[in-house]
Amino acid sequence: MERSCHLHTHSLKIGLIGAGRIGRLHAEHLTTRIPSADLIMVADVFEEAARQCAELYSIPYSTQDYHAVLDHPDIQAVVICSSTDTHAQIIEEAAQAGKHIFCEKPIALDLQSIDQALDAVERAGVKLQIGFNRRFDANYRRVREAVERGEIGRPHMLHIISRDPDPPPIEYIRMSGGIFLDMTIHDFDIARFLIGNEVEEVFAQASVMDDPAIGAAGDVDTTVVTLQFTNGVIGTISNSRHAAYGYDQRVELLGSAGAISTDNNYSNTAVISDGNSVRRDLPLHFFVERYVESFVTEMAAFVDAVLHETPVPVTGYDGRVPVIMALAAHKSLVEHRPIPLSEIE
Amino acid sequence: MERSCHLHTHSLKIGLIGAGRIGRLHAEHLTTRIPSADLIMVADVFEEAARQCAELYSIPYSTQDYHAVLDHPDIQAVVICSSTDTHAQIIEEAAQAGKHIFCEKPIALDLQSIDQALDAVERAGVKLQIGFNRRFDANYRRVREAVERGEIGRPHMLHIISRDPDPPPIEYIRMSGGIFLDMTIHDFDIARFLIGNEVEEVFAQASVMDDPAIGAAGDVDTTVVTLQFTNGVIGTISNSRHAAYGYDQRVELLGSAGAISTDNNYSNTAVISDGNSVRRDLPLHFFVERYVESFVTEMAAFVDAVLHETPVPVTGYDGRVPVIMALAAHKSLVEHRPIPLSEIE
Amino acid sequence: MERSCHLHTHSLKIGLIGAGRIGRLHAEHLTTRIPSADLIMVADVFEEAARQCAELYSIPYSTQDYHAVLDHPDIQAVVICSSTDTHAQIIEEAAQAGKHIFCEKPIALDLQSIDQALDAVERAGVKLQIGFNRRFDANYRRVREAVERGEIGRPHMLHIISRDPDPPPIEYIRMSGGIFLDMTIHDFDIARFLIGNEVEEVFAQASVMDDPAIGAAGDVDTTVVTLQFTNGVIGTISNSRHAAYGYDQRVELLGSAGAISTDNNYSNTAVISDGNSVRRDLPLHFFVERYVESFVTEMAAFVDAVLHETPVPVTGYDGRVPVIMALAAHKSLVEHRPIPLSEIE
Amino acid sequence: MERSCHLHTHSLKIGLIGAGRIGRLHAEHLTTRIPSADLIMVADVFEEAARQCAELYSIPYSTQDYHAVLDHPDIQAVVICSSTDTHAQIIEEAAQAGKHIFCEKPIALDLQSIDQALDAVERAGVKLQIGFNRRFDANYRRVREAVERGEIGRPHMLHIISRDPDPPPIEYIRMSGGIFLDMTIHDFDIARFLIGNEVEEVFAQASVMDDPAIGAAGDVDTTVVTLQFTNGVIGTISNSRHAAYGYDQRVELLGSAGAISTDNNYSNTAVISDGNSVRRDLPLHFFVERYVESFVTEMAAFVDAVLHETPVPVTGYDGRVPVIMALAAHKSLVEHRPIPLSEIE
Repeated sequence: MERSCHLHTHSLKIGLIGAGRIGRLHAEHLTTRIPSADLIMVADVFEEAARQCAELYSIPYSTQDYHAVLDHPDIQAVVICSSTDTHAQIIEEAAQAGKHIFCEKPIALDLQSIDQALDAVERAGVKLQIGFNRRFDANYRRVREAVERGEIGRPHMLHIISRDPDPPPIEYIRMSGGIFLDMTIHDFDIARFLIGNEVEEVFAQASVMDDPAIGAAGDVDTTVVTLQFTNGVIGTISNSRHAAYGYDQRVELLGSAGAISTDNNYSNTAVISDGNSVRRDLPLHFFVERYVESFVTEMAAFVDAVLHETPVPVTGYDGRVPVIMALAAHKSLVEHRPIPLSEIE
Repeated sequence: MERSCHLHTHSLKIGLIGAGRIGRLHAEHLTTRIPSADLIMVADVFEEAARQCAELYSIPYSTQDYHAVLDHPDIQAVVICSSTDTHAQIIEEAAQAGKHIFCEKPIALDLQSIDQALDAVERAGVKLQIGFNRRFDANYRRVREAVERGEIGRPHMLHIISRDPDPPPIEYIRMSGGIFLDMTIHDFDIARFLIGNEVEEVFAQASVMDDPAIGAAGDVDTTVVTLQFTNGVIGTISNSRHAAYGYDQRVELLGSAGAISTDNNYSNTAVISDGNSVRRDLPLHFFVERYVESFVTEMAAFVDAVLHETPVPVTGYDGRVPVIMALAAHKSLVEHRPIPLSEIE
Repeated sequence: MERSCHLHTHSLKIGLIGAGRIGRLHAEHLTTRIPSADLIMVADVFEEAARQCAELYSIPYSTQDYHAVLDHPDIQAVVICSSTDTHAQIIEEAAQAGKHIFCEKPIALDLQSIDQALDAVERAGVKLQIGFNRRFDANYRRVREAVERGEIGRPHMLHIISRDPDPPPIEYIRMSGGIFLDMTIHDFDIARFLIGNEVEEVFAQASVMDDPAIGAAGDVDTTVVTLQFTNGVIGTISNSRHAAYGYDQRVELLGSAGAISTDNNYSNTAVISDGNSVRRDLPLHFFVERYVESFVTEMAAFVDAVLHETPVPVTGYDGRVPVIMALAAHKSLVEHRPIPLSEIE
Repeated sequence: MERSCHLHTHSLKIGLIGAGRIGRLHAEHLTTRIPSADLIMVADVFEEAARQCAELYSIPYSTQDYHAVLDHPDIQAVVICSSTDTHAQIIEEAAQAGKHIFCEKPIALDLQSIDQALDAVERAGVKLQIGFNRRFDANYRRVREAVERGEIGRPHMLHIISRDPDPPPIEYIRMSGGIFLDMTIHDFDIARFLIGNEVEEVFAQASVMDDPAIGAAGDVDTTVVTLQFTNGVIGTISNSRHAAYGYDQRVELLGSAGAISTDNNYSNTAVISDGNSVRRDLPLHFFVERYVESFVTEMAAFVDAVLHETPVPVTGYDGRVPVIMALAAHKSLVEHRPIPLSEIE
């Protein structure tokens, strides 16, 4: 009998900042699905949350103060999952500490904070990847691949359907910066990713159709944003905070030689025919179920990029542009006219 | 052996004006699929076209001059399939002659002509049905039925995909009044039909993506028109003059309790799996194949409405509003801003 | 104004024998959908049925005695839709009268009657087409086309699903010759048609699962018949007299280079997603709805074959073989062993 | 900063016997996906294979001799993934050593060896779970659930499609016991699982359609086995060793109140429409891709059953019956008649 000696000599030492829902999700993936990652510390302003997360995922150290993560000499990279209003500040400090950074979207709700954070990253020469996980989803990747391979020719039109099963708490809506910064931002990113071109103008329409309380909180629940790309492509994003049948995440792209469209994902393929209908179960309910594999893949890609010193697949710039688009959409709604992104800069 | 005595004593005597593609389509249906109709005369400015149509469908009389149809004492109703620029004038004369009228869309390309024609119809007390055949298509009817039954709750958003397999000849485009009056007009009608509510504002975006010659002719080939309904519903219409895979006619409606969507129709259901893909044949190629049953049903509905003195299912008013929407969409494109329909009246 | 002169000089003069459900279906198609056919007489043992059918479809003559049809000098072809037990006798007499013959399946329930009828047809040199309408259905044709084109390579396995929405009346079951002669016979025909090869052996399994009364009437309601073709292909036919969701008519064919499968047909493509499921309406309910176009096409093909003196697409031989298969399946069930068709001849 | 203390005090200590493809698959899942499992030793007759597996999955000990696993006092359970001919012997020894057992299917190719192994397990009072992973697949579970809930009423007919993308090497085929013991055995298990009832008789038909070398090796590549259940349900299993489009794993179950069917699984949902077809990518290629989640779930279920002293979900009896069915199917093929399972015992 031989004692196995196993050192992942090349594993990346990581600290996690923020042990909420999305933080615990990354913790699980880092500790079980990504062998080249080594999650050694978790920080959360709620000490108990950090401690529980550490226990659950066998993370050696927990702390209330994220500076302990930034100060730890072995930690090479941080994963920022704290509340949005702390992202920019922590990015700046992490960059100054020489840590590579994975940060959940959005970087911040205003451009000035974003630019200050991105400057710090650039000066420090560290890597920064933004958490637009949908780019790593098999469906969107297949659409992008079709565009790159020319399977549908040159893109002409893009239609994104993106609806949540239920609105978040009114509390959250009040703080989120509104639907464009909180929900549509993912779709703005996917639009740029799929077309491989920049949007130059947006026009937003919106209603409060689902819940008057959302309107009372200053937000909307039903919107269409149309996009004008610089290459002539026209896009639409159809958002609702409440689709009775669950999470609806689809896209259709028309090109000069054809079209490609994706459907929702389901937990099984069974179809039941009875005296009433031919039916199947509802799609995967929300983002944790629907996008779990994309979260694993994005994090593995980050770990890879740091370990192999290759470019990250979603840059700070990629994190900045969707915020501009969201601000422009908001302005379009307020002023009831199409808004060129150049008005926002 | 008994000699069968068969009189359709209640059949409606009809005259057809215009023996082009759509005229011959109606001639075929009137003579073979609608037993309660009796097509007894066909007129066309090209005498030979009228004569051939008469022979092909066993129509007793043919003529070059549509006045012969209007003057025929037995003819109770006319079906107008002549060129668009003659519709309003013929409607007026037919109304004055006391004939009930089925007229292909659009009534005219300007509101003044439309209103003059509708006035004549009202004064004469005859029936007028406009040829928005899609309202009789099984897919759109099922969507409307879902709305009426409350199967998806209260409507929130409507997305219409409507794409042609190939652009019409540049000659035609030059005369058609542009994509909104010639192509989107069907979608404007379907939007009103499905939601059962009026649009108050439109915003149009467009590109020339497919063929520069279309741009040179003063038109566009790729457009998105967004619709604001008075009840808060937001709609989009996605048009292209060229979908490589053929005729694309789909709709999706999100409501408070669910969503309903339709797919294209196909000539068969066969799916082939081989070493390359899992695939099926292309959808039904164009409107004659795709909408044939809806053309039969709309005409049967007209014949029924006249014979049984019930209201027609698509009124002159229903023919007028989509023209206003098209004119507003055009203005929106020119002025690059959302246009309330009230600006057009 | 010109009086249109229209003679279908080449139309085929036809007499219909049997004005029941299927007879009236053919009458409707012959009088409205097939311009080259001229249905001039209808016969039925129930005089009133013949008379009503004549009135409904404007057929000049009706009669109680089918000999009046056979004796009519203008009638060139007969369509036999009387009860099964009269088919063989009428075929024989019609052949002797020099009429071309379209006969509903099955020719007879015993081989001797079939062979006597086919002999008469051969001696008279008239055409005989058997009413296996499914061969003219777009789905099955597409499967056959795939085989002929080599799209799936050489056939290996065939699976036929064929289920009725409801069992026929027990009365009918008692007289029908049993499920194999009354229901599976269509599938036996389709199996030969799709593979283009003969079956050499069958094995039948069956249960009474749906209704004990069917068992009491000496029949079964749930069966699987496996087929061994001479070229090695293995087939299965899955029959039920009662599918709660309606008429289920599908087929799957595996070949060396791929597979092709068909789905049911639906009245619309709408899909509804709500809080419970993603669902669509049930498939077209029964054979009249599902196969209407195939009935038109088969009859048009018969009329064509007679008018243009080309071979009929479904021969008397094609009518004979499925009866042998049905008799073999019955014997297999009784003797509980695979039965070579050669045992039946 | 707090040092996290994390002991999975209730984790199950496991030894793995066999580090081939399926062994490594289980090793990966036990070490990354099942936190309550603790894989501490791996054995393989090829010492190097054991060593590499240990390194790859951070397993503390590796060995050439599986007795080291059985002798290790900490090891509570073994996972047997060695070659089929060793299963029964190792089960016996493991039971005598007081270890709980997970064993890949089949237990053995003959009943005597199986019964000896099952006796040993019973005498030792240890748990034994057989590796019929498909029972844990979401699609099959959904079908079983529909049966249990009565969503389709009482089962009437079952059709299983089960085809491999490519035949195994001829070497393997020669040793495998033939298609029924090597491939159909999974379908025999699923048939019992879905219907919840025993098969009393089978009838097998088979051809060599794909590769004459398979016939030369004494096996077949294309088979249909029909099943007669004791409750009257009729089943079919359609197997091919070569489906050009990949792994085909579907099932359809007709009941008194409806039907349920499953489709294949795909890596993405994208559909491409171009000038040729409407198509999607091929299904997940083979069992590792297609059934990965079911492998995780079955192993987690085993670990759970041992830790919580609950019954295993797939028993030794469940491992024995499909071997009887396979032997009966083989006899049916040889003797060309239906074989009651009672003939095999």
